[in-house]
This record gives sequence, C-alpha cells and structure tokens, in this order.
Amino acid sequence: MAPPRSTAQRIHDLVYRLRTDIDLWLASASPEGVPHLIPLMFLWFEGRVFVATTETSVTVRNLSRRPRARAALGHTRDVILIDGWATLIAADRLHPDIRAAFAAETGWDAASYEGYCFIELEPEWIGVWREENEMAGRDVMRKGAWLA
Amino acid sequence: MAPPRSTAQRIHDLVYRLRTDIDLWLASASPEGVPHLIPLMFLWFEGRVFVATTETSVTVRNLSRRPRARAALGHTRDVILIDGWATLIAADRLHPDIRAAFAAETGWDAASYEGYCFIELEPEWIGVWREENEMAGRDVMRKGAWLA
Repeated sequence: MAPPRSTAQRIHDLVYRLRTDIDLWLASASPEGVPHLIPLMFLWFEGRVFVATTETSVTVRNLSRRPRARAALGHTRDVILIDGWATLIAADRLHPDIRAAFAAETGWDAASYEGYCFIELEPEWIGVWREENEMAGRDVMRKGAWLA
Repeated sequence: MAPPRSTAQRIHDLVYRLRTDIDLWLASASPEGVPHLIPLMFLWFEGRVFVATTETSVTVRNLSRRPRARAALGHTRDVILIDGWATLIAADRLHPDIRAAFAAETGWDAASYEGYCFIELEPEWIGVWREENEMAGRDVMRKGAWLA
C-alpha cells in the first residue's frame, strides 16, 4: 500500500480528476429519507459541479425539496466525495459559458434537449482517500474552505 | 455502441459481478433527507447483499431510522443499482456461514473487529444498464421478483 498523501497532494489529484473525469455518482434523498443514486456526466467549472438530467427525474424532485447532495467520483479505491448544496437551473437560464463548457467536456449539449435542466452543486465538504491508511486526513475541504 | 442486452443476459452479467466484485457504493439517507454515500466491501450470499461498517457510522445511524438503501456496483458505464430494505445485524448474531463467506470474499473478517456490525440488504428492485440504449429494459427485478 502506498504511503498516505498530503492534503496538498490530495487536492492536486482531486483537481486532475475533476477536470478529466466525465461521470460521477449523485446521491440525493426524499424528505422521507429514501436515498436515490444515479450516474451522471458532469462539468467542474469555477469551483462548482454541474450536471444535467430530466426535469421529471427523482433526483430533481428530491433536490427541489431537500437541496443536499453527495457526489462520488471515480473508484471505490480512489474515492472523491463531495457534499454540497444543490441549485436547480432551467436550461435557458444557464450561463452560456457553462453551457458551452459542459458540451465541450461531456460531448453532450444537454441544454438543447427538451425537458432537461441543470443542477449546480456548491461543495461544502470534500473527502479524498484511496485505502484505509488515508482515512485519517481525508478532509480536503470543510465549510467550503480548502484545507491546503 | 453494443446492442442492448436481453433481460436474461443482464441478469447473467449481474450475477457474475455480484460474485466477483469486492466493493460497492452504498447510499442511505437521514429522516431529514440528507443523503449519505460511501464505498464498502460486500458479499452476495443467497440473494442478499451483506456489508460491514462501524456501529457509529452515519450509514448505520441512517438505516436504523430509515431502513431504505440503494447500492451501486461497478462503473458509471456498466451500472448495477439495487434498491432494498436494510437490516442491521450485530457481529455476534451473524450466521457463521455468512461470516466465513464474507471473510473469504473480501479478505476481511469484519466480525472479529470491535465496533463493527453488518447490514443485510434485501433487493426489491434491481436495474442493470451500460449506455443510453440500455435505459429501456433496465429493470431486472421488481418487487423482489426476477423478470427473467
């Protein structure tokens, strides 16, 4: 097992993954405490995560009532978890730069599809670890502030 | 893109993954609708999923109050989602065969560790898909019954 990474190294690796990965897992929950989890394509743009999904999806219904989400990137042995506040954005209200960046990153101009909307996730806590020996020191962001 | 698989083929591929994968993502939620999501090692045993985690974890606290969980196996482009009812099992109440199988599959005899308990997930709905063209027909189990 590799030695545990420093906080600065974890942030370096995190940013690389945020810029290069295409998909994430997005967890939301109903007000009754029923969890939901789906894979979605995402864009990392100026410190926020953007995903697109259908306006009628369970995820959008959940987040319109409880705007807390947790996203996971990558693999179970190279974990990135992001807790944050979700904001729903109608496709025609999305900033053109974000729309263009999303289309360029994912290859999918979601805003041009009928019935799709965007979710902006503002990170509040981010955890980064690979194996058990990195569980200590896994926090790289708390209350929206980077720890290195 | 490969042609969409039949339901029977998806179940075949699902069972292979349940038998060979080591990790899954487990989503739970608080009664207030705050989602939680973590990677855990798992065992597939006689139609149920078993994971182990600490008794004081957010996952155990959530599931003790709202016993609904969603598990995801594998990759965002080879998706297996399992919705089900979760039962918490104290380590010393776990059936010895399950304890032994869990240790053999994961390489980790969780029941021997202080402060760990098990979660049994009984599948109620299972969805299996790879790409967009498999979204139709993704259900392979509904209300606990296999569809092929």
